[in-house]
Amino acid sequence: MEKINLAQKLALFADHWNPRIIGELNGQHVKLAKLLGEFVWHSHAEEDEMFLVLKGTLLMRLRDRDIELSEGEFFIVPRGVEHLPVAVEEVHVLLFEPASTLNTGNVQNERTRGELERL
Amino acid sequence: MEKINLAQKLALFADHWNPRIIGELNGQHVKLAKLLGEFVWHSHAEEDEMFLVLKGTLLMRLRDRDIELSEGEFFIVPRGVEHLPVAVEEVHVLLFEPASTLNTGNVQNERTRGELERL
Repeated sequence: MEKINLAQKLALFADHWNPRIIGELNGQHVKLAKLLGEFVWHSHAEEDEMFLVLKGTLLMRLRDRDIELSEGEFFIVPRGVEHLPVAVEEVHVLLFEPASTLNTGNVQNERTRGELERL
Repeated sequence: MEKINLAQKLALFADHWNPRIIGELNGQHVKLAKLLGEFVWHSHAEEDEMFLVLKGTLLMRLRDRDIELSEGEFFIVPRGVEHLPVAVEEVHVLLFEPASTLNTGNVQNERTRGELERL
């Protein structure tokens, strides 16, 4: 039961597409991630997923359109909706999603992270 | 299914202690609130509540200690824990909590907000 400083937590890691858990409440996780480049198309069957941009510009590609998210903007990807996060330059995001959420959703590949580190 | 810009939403209201709903996912609400002055001691029997400070300094008083939250810091008040938010100067916060959460928790008074506005 301590306060969390986002900048301090962001300073603790540098790798991309590897979310860290920084908080838990009501069965949901609060995570931080650094993104660079293109991820993989995926969806989450049971989880809505919120991306809040803390730094940079995140391009969230959906099958029917693209959404550009700047610092201070968020987007909620509803469960079942395919999405592809793209970061042309490094992006820092805060994620809010159920504790059950797998980063690559319905896809299993080298980008998949199983047990996430807690900071 | 649109992106949300926090600054744009914050510009839409000016009153204090009256959270607005700006997102919903997995049975949780994302809210914005402006705080000024002292709230009321209360707790939430069934809900953990997250306060992320977007602007200003929030003093979160607990029965056994005080926690000072600056911009870019958050605190999760676990269910059942009495807390008293205090904002000496205006504070803007992002809240994450279950859709069932009542702002004054176990207390009903003039500060209680029933149906919240959606922005």
